[in-house]
Amino acid sequence: MLVQKYKEMLSGKSVIRELSEFATARGREIGYENVFDYSLGNPSVPVPREFTDEMIRMLANQGTNELHGYSPSLGITSVREAVAASLEKRFGLPYRREHIFMASGAAGALAHAFRLVTEPGDEILTFAPYFPEYGPYVNLTGAVLKVVPPDTERFQIRFDKLEEMLTEKVKAVLINTPNNPSGTVYSGETLERLSDLLRGKSAEYGHEIYLISDEPYREIVFGGVEAPCVSAFYDNTIMCYSFSKSLSIPGERIGYVAVNPRCREAETMVNMCGQISRGIGHNCPPSIIQLAVAKVLDRTADLSVYETNMEILYKELMELGFDCVKPGGTFYIFPRALEEDAKVFCRRALDYDLVLVPGDTFGAPGYFRMAYCIDTEKVERSLGALRRFVSETYR
Amino acid sequence: MLVQKYKEMLSGKSVIRELSEFATARGREIGYENVFDYSLGNPSVPVPREFTDEMIRMLANQGTNELHGYSPSLGITSVREAVAASLEKRFGLPYRREHIFMASGAAGALAHAFRLVTEPGDEILTFAPYFPEYGPYVNLTGAVLKVVPPDTERFQIRFDKLEEMLTEKVKAVLINTPNNPSGTVYSGETLERLSDLLRGKSAEYGHEIYLISDEPYREIVFGGVEAPCVSAFYDNTIMCYSFSKSLSIPGERIGYVAVNPRCREAETMVNMCGQISRGIGHNCPPSIIQLAVAKVLDRTADLSVYETNMEILYKELMELGFDCVKPGGTFYIFPRALEEDAKVFCRRALDYDLVLVPGDTFGAPGYFRMAYCIDTEKVERSLGALRRFVSETYR
Repeated sequence: MLVQKYKEMLSGKSVIRELSEFATARGREIGYENVFDYSLGNPSVPVPREFTDEMIRMLANQGTNELHGYSPSLGITSVREAVAASLEKRFGLPYRREHIFMASGAAGALAHAFRLVTEPGDEILTFAPYFPEYGPYVNLTGAVLKVVPPDTERFQIRFDKLEEMLTEKVKAVLINTPNNPSGTVYSGETLERLSDLLRGKSAEYGHEIYLISDEPYREIVFGGVEAPCVSAFYDNTIMCYSFSKSLSIPGERIGYVAVNPRCREAETMVNMCGQISRGIGHNCPPSIIQLAVAKVLDRTADLSVYETNMEILYKELMELGFDCVKPGGTFYIFPRALEEDAKVFCRRALDYDLVLVPGDTFGAPGYFRMAYCIDTEKVERSLGALRRFVSETYR
Repeated sequence: MLVQKYKEMLSGKSVIRELSEFATARGREIGYENVFDYSLGNPSVPVPREFTDEMIRMLANQGTNELHGYSPSLGITSVREAVAASLEKRFGLPYRREHIFMASGAAGALAHAFRLVTEPGDEILTFAPYFPEYGPYVNLTGAVLKVVPPDTERFQIRFDKLEEMLTEKVKAVLINTPNNPSGTVYSGETLERLSDLLRGKSAEYGHEIYLISDEPYREIVFGGVEAPCVSAFYDNTIMCYSFSKSLSIPGERIGYVAVNPRCREAETMVNMCGQISRGIGHNCPPSIIQLAVAKVLDRTADLSVYETNMEILYKELMELGFDCVKPGGTFYIFPRALEEDAKVFCRRALDYDLVLVPGDTFGAPGYFRMAYCIDTEKVERSLGALRRFVSETYR
């Protein structure tokens, strides 16, 4: 009597994973350096030296029980304080440690955020194109993820559709800016309008609608682009952060929930996260990793390669006649495919050893994602394949 | 509209935590070395040198993206292989990596095990005295934890009560041997009888009853005591392991689920764990910690101090006339209090700066727990306080 809902999920294969497996297999045939693998959003830039140095320093000098001991259930106090101070300095909101809950990556942070504000049957809205894991992340809690169709002009928000879907059943709206897969950064205007709408509907329905802001790409914003602080626009914001991309340490599972200090019950919400943990086996991110990130909060890996790659790809895609919104951040770009069915388009691209992901996976059919967190040298080498693919297939 | 069930949990204070806070506060008054704090099960022996050395070696020599990159959702393949090989060698069961799911500590492992085999409303049985976190761990999944009353003679199993409670609603039985808080190790006879009963009832009800075996204390077994391998007795066993106690690294959140290779759908169950993870924000234990424990699988911290402490305390408790089952392992002892209400007994002990935890918390009123994972020197110094407490209060 194994639980059927999990057993049934085993037959549903992830498209991204399948493509990545194809890339690996093809790499065994022709050398992985010759496969232009744009499938996976796996950070490629080295971890900052300071992070590694801090880890070694602690391991060499600190008492092992102190270093590897239990973390309090909300996170190590000094770490929460350091995170709050860093957020206050950066965003000008009065964050204190009472607003911070240390979590095992953005996935851990979101698992707590969803459970804070939704009961089974409640709805959470998000916006296409969106990170496909949001589906199981939300739906396995018993809440229901509903997806607002994409604004394909600019990948901001389709407010007409949002208003239609923002019924009384909606307890939270989930955004991701800078966005995976589009690379779009929500503008101040978009966030202002979204906040006004949520305030109005909260008043109308007599219950708060929370804004859950998934911000793993916050530090990857390109020159000339302004990335407004989401929490500054809306009091009932639950920020979910991960250090996976900023420090290039996705395997170490470290991030946090930061409840907006202006949120009415912010401290209670953080304490509730400690209770939610008990039900989902979370029990804090690893102690040594908490301590290490606290030492390098204001540093990032050298993320400039992502912008370099974006500029090269964007220029080429424009020249080849693609319809494409220029990314403001992340390491993704999301052009329109050259034929209606992006799955067919991506399948044809494989003949040129170009591994692209169809937008269907992200709730935006007809588009495709390229994850350019790869070496610039490889991006440059891929341009020839891209040109041949387009000219031989679509001219 | 915060979710009430979590909000309401905030008012329920943990007795153990309150006592530990008392000990800390009292320590500020008289010096913590003068507080005989037996409240917390926090490992006190140093981490094995090899673990620290491996961590430093990897940090100093390995590529950072390889070291800190995403782990596959079931755990790093080489780590799963190493765990399986170690279990096979040790227990003689044909473990392969397909049977291993890496989890963030025993809490993470149990969170997956419960969700594998129970739907909301199903029952899980455990045996008093038991680790009190089992309550929220199980009940917050929607399943219901029911507690079989204690066998106060030997802290084995009361089979008369178990048979009564083992109805069709029960989908799993949860055991913890060596046991927190009693220190008891289940005998081969107990495990044989339990397995026979579960096999019989599984056949009778037409559905498997799984045995979930929580084994964080497996490596802390005292001289002359035999600790049988639970999985060898019962095919449908889901072993939940943690390195917290064996390596003294509770903060690093590392353990695993090992499904018995003889279990009919073992491999499917491990794959299902990967799906369960998506709903609870688990996404694997930290990569570097997975890699480090894989290097020291057959090592432990020097755990001998726990046996030394146990012998000192047991001898003294006997001399003072306590009714007490001699622990076979762990770092706990669980004597009967000298008055009916163990809460009153423990409160009186505080006057002697002895911090003991009433058995009510563990489902066994009238008893108390001492966690002797503290320095032997302090255990010895506590004996005087214990003697004075007993003679001045109960003679």
